[in-house]
Amino acid sequence: MPTTTWNRHHILSLADFTTAEYNAVLQTAASFQEVLSRRTKKVPTLQGQVVANLFFEPSTRTRSSFEIAAKRLSADTLNFAAATSSMTKGETILDTAKTYLAMGTDIMVIRHKEAGVPQAIAQEMDRLGVKVSVLNAGDGQHEHPSQGLLDLFTICSLIDPAQPRIELLEGKKIAIVGDILHSRVARSNIWSLTASGAEVHLAAPPTLLPKFFAEYLGATDSENLKSKRLFTHWQLEPALENADFVMTLRLQKERMTAHLLPSLREYHQLFGITRNKLKLCKPNVKVLHPGPVNRGVEISSDLMDDPEFSLIQDQVTSGVAVRMALLYFIGSGRA
Amino acid sequence: MPTTTWNRHHILSLADFTTAEYNAVLQTAASFQEVLSRRTKKVPTLQGQVVANLFFEPSTRTRSSFEIAAKRLSADTLNFAAATSSMTKGETILDTAKTYLAMGTDIMVIRHKEAGVPQAIAQEMDRLGVKVSVLNAGDGQHEHPSQGLLDLFTICSLIDPAQPRIELLEGKKIAIVGDILHSRVARSNIWSLTASGAEVHLAAPPTLLPKFFAEYLGATDSENLKSKRLFTHWQLEPALENADFVMTLRLQKERMTAHLLPSLREYHQLFGITRNKLKLCKPNVKVLHPGPVNRGVEISSDLMDDPEFSLIQDQVTSGVAVRMALLYFIGSGRA
Amino acid sequence: MPTTTWNRHHILSLADFTTAEYNAVLQTAASFQEVLSRRTKKVPTLQGQVVANLFFEPSTRTRSSFEIAAKRLSADTLNFAAATSSMTKGETILDTAKTYLAMGTDIMVIRHKEAGVPQAIAQEMDRLGVKVSVLNAGDGQHEHPSQGLLDLFTICSLIDPAQPRIELLEGKKIAIVGDILHSRVARSNIWSLTASGAEVHLAAPPTLLPKFFAEYLGATDSENLKSKRLFTHWQLEPALENADFVMTLRLQKERMTAHLLPSLREYHQLFGITRNKLKLCKPNVKVLHPGPVNRGVEISSDLMDDPEFSLIQDQVTSGVAVRMALLYFIGSGRA
Repeated sequence: MPTTTWNRHHILSLADFTTAEYNAVLQTAASFQEVLSRRTKKVPTLQGQVVANLFFEPSTRTRSSFEIAAKRLSADTLNFAAATSSMTKGETILDTAKTYLAMGTDIMVIRHKEAGVPQAIAQEMDRLGVKVSVLNAGDGQHEHPSQGLLDLFTICSLIDPAQPRIELLEGKKIAIVGDILHSRVARSNIWSLTASGAEVHLAAPPTLLPKFFAEYLGATDSENLKSKRLFTHWQLEPALENADFVMTLRLQKERMTAHLLPSLREYHQLFGITRNKLKLCKPNVKVLHPGPVNRGVEISSDLMDDPEFSLIQDQVTSGVAVRMALLYFIGSGRA
Repeated sequence: MPTTTWNRHHILSLADFTTAEYNAVLQTAASFQEVLSRRTKKVPTLQGQVVANLFFEPSTRTRSSFEIAAKRLSADTLNFAAATSSMTKGETILDTAKTYLAMGTDIMVIRHKEAGVPQAIAQEMDRLGVKVSVLNAGDGQHEHPSQGLLDLFTICSLIDPAQPRIELLEGKKIAIVGDILHSRVARSNIWSLTASGAEVHLAAPPTLLPKFFAEYLGATDSENLKSKRLFTHWQLEPALENADFVMTLRLQKERMTAHLLPSLREYHQLFGITRNKLKLCKPNVKVLHPGPVNRGVEISSDLMDDPEFSLIQDQVTSGVAVRMALLYFIGSGRA
Repeated sequence: MPTTTWNRHHILSLADFTTAEYNAVLQTAASFQEVLSRRTKKVPTLQGQVVANLFFEPSTRTRSSFEIAAKRLSADTLNFAAATSSMTKGETILDTAKTYLAMGTDIMVIRHKEAGVPQAIAQEMDRLGVKVSVLNAGDGQHEHPSQGLLDLFTICSLIDPAQPRIELLEGKKIAIVGDILHSRVARSNIWSLTASGAEVHLAAPPTLLPKFFAEYLGATDSENLKSKRLFTHWQLEPALENADFVMTLRLQKERMTAHLLPSLREYHQLFGITRNKLKLCKPNVKVLHPGPVNRGVEISSDLMDDPEFSLIQDQVTSGVAVRMALLYFIGSGRA
């Protein structure tokens, strides 16, 4: 493991991540990636510690990824799913979190459909003076930092597997395509990618693109944003032109009922990524998607499965290594 | 670990618990509490044993507490939740239990909305001549012994953390306030607290207080009850006067639909515990609640969060230590 | 452990199982059965490996059995239940499987209500050139190989506990009674039992018996079937006459709504197994049922609980040992 000093106690947002922090995560994830290629994929780092997955919003993919990551660090895991919980008995979210604290939880991984819930729980833990760390696993339309970091790791370790570092993205052109407005994944990626020195191009129908970026990104945070490297487009083509990487976003079908979109077919025609449209990009362009994918909507089915272009499976694999790194940093600070 | 001889194979009720048993639990829980304060919170006591949580009634809090306790004893845990089970396929409860027995379960932790289910399963296990232990994690309105024991441990270890023992409660005045009639928590606490030599004062609206105590506590058990130390009140004030501890109970909102209560607001006015009402008690009075709490109903929100008075978080922490002790006693008897 | 060479990478069907494979499973299960009788029931065989239970169709019994088996081999387990999954978000089953692959799953245990899903996933894994093994835990009305193998183990280890082997069934008469047509359990058992050299007698009402056996068993597979040892009956009696073992099948109550059956009462009268009807069989006949049982429908309640006749609990216990053997074979091939 690298000997980087890590001072962040909770991981809630990428808005104020430093270059040193990004690189610490990338470097540590790379060494865990190596652990995962061994036959025995476990390390004793978090033995005896309890990682509670408090998922107030259902998720199989992200919860399983955190669960595998925690188990490979030898932690004990607890799963809380809101559906079967005492939440239905009217307890507040903070009380639920404090109950898990009192039971001896060391790290809380929290997903909630409302923005700000992990932050509120982290504040309460700090106010109580306890050592519990909170990791935001997706809060409403706000942020999904571990997804942003795993996307970053996927890209950087493609460029230099041995020494993935954020500087590798300097000057690269990255397109993010789809429902930017409602996407916590897009928001976390905008922070990490602009911090890397990449040029970030957002493409979406006008109804799915934020009008006021300062507001979208949070007034207090927007200073950190290297806004000169952020561009928005109402068409796909200018975003794709000469792009090195294309990130497509999942289209929530609920957006249609809200009349923000004409039809899935038209959306696919205009913003769906296909092999043909990729011809506008650099020749060795790669495509990412946070999953789960609506095949034939945001990306064509054949492209998704094409190992020449698609990094989608690598993202999932990177997710375990990156989450191990995050749990390692916030978990071993508690000595 | 203490070297007390433990003869009880199942833990179903506190009605016939002896002073020696109470003290064995308190003393062992205290040593596990110490284990939980270490960085590595695991002991190998139940390695290779299987603890099955058979929760026919949903519960996150109690199930998680038992799950952490089992994992910290290095047991393997299985969770069964009725919602997704073959129960919907018409299998009987006893057959479900026997299936878990046949799979090699060593300890069954059982919750059911009907009183007597854990007892029935324990009897069946004994009839079959197998070594499986049954732990009642709440059966209908009957008992919740691990809750009674963790409340006892919370109080006793507040008085003497190094040597918590039931004799410490001799002569203390303890008020139990709320829906006594329908509460399995109250029933288990009445057994342990009256056995301790404390004076127990029950306060509730007439509709939520049992009329016939022998019947309420079970005809065969009532001899054990030190009834001269049990008092009932239709008002809150006489119960609170000079009390050392106040236990509030969760108010099931279903009671309202059954016309047993006028309104939540009126209930809070009459029986809700507030800082102001606590002035009737001893100056260093402490408040307990089994959780989850309806803030502003059975207890005011500020009082619940006040570390000067509230033991609610300590109860949750005690729960893990006490459940480790119970699993230890019934689990290690099986050599 | 036996030193048998095992070449099968996935376990999807018993149609093409060889005698050597049956015996390797029986012998290995016998040694794990011995492990399970020890106080510490764990072996380190699959330490650091991940077994994912992907249950697209809910099941408590089979999922718990695989989970215990995996934990006793020291594997880490992940549970996926379709109800709370991203499946509801429109992802395909193959994409879900590939996500678990990318997270580092070593063995996928798959149940689905459609026949062929585990096969399709196994094919996809092979196409991708990855080492992941797929174990069919029940696919529609097709097969349930681990159930067939545990039934075989239950019977063979009754005859010779020290050396269970398929040859022990040569010349035995085995009746399978009930809803053959829709039963994946029956289909798997027909393959193993006819391969053993036993005489297999199927008894069911005409509406629940397949008309065309080649089609029922799969055209390509039917050559392997020793059809001369397979007999069908529309009445129970000829199947029971001199039988050594009687396997009853669970009656899905949905069959009634589909007008395939007159009434539960009439079904029980005609095809329900009772002590009285067993008088037609060999004196030491034994009864099996895959569970969960509808007491008083396919088997009388008293017979089910009679240790003289019933092997139902032994089947559940055998299930853990047999599944440990299967996970051992497909898991340790991945060196």
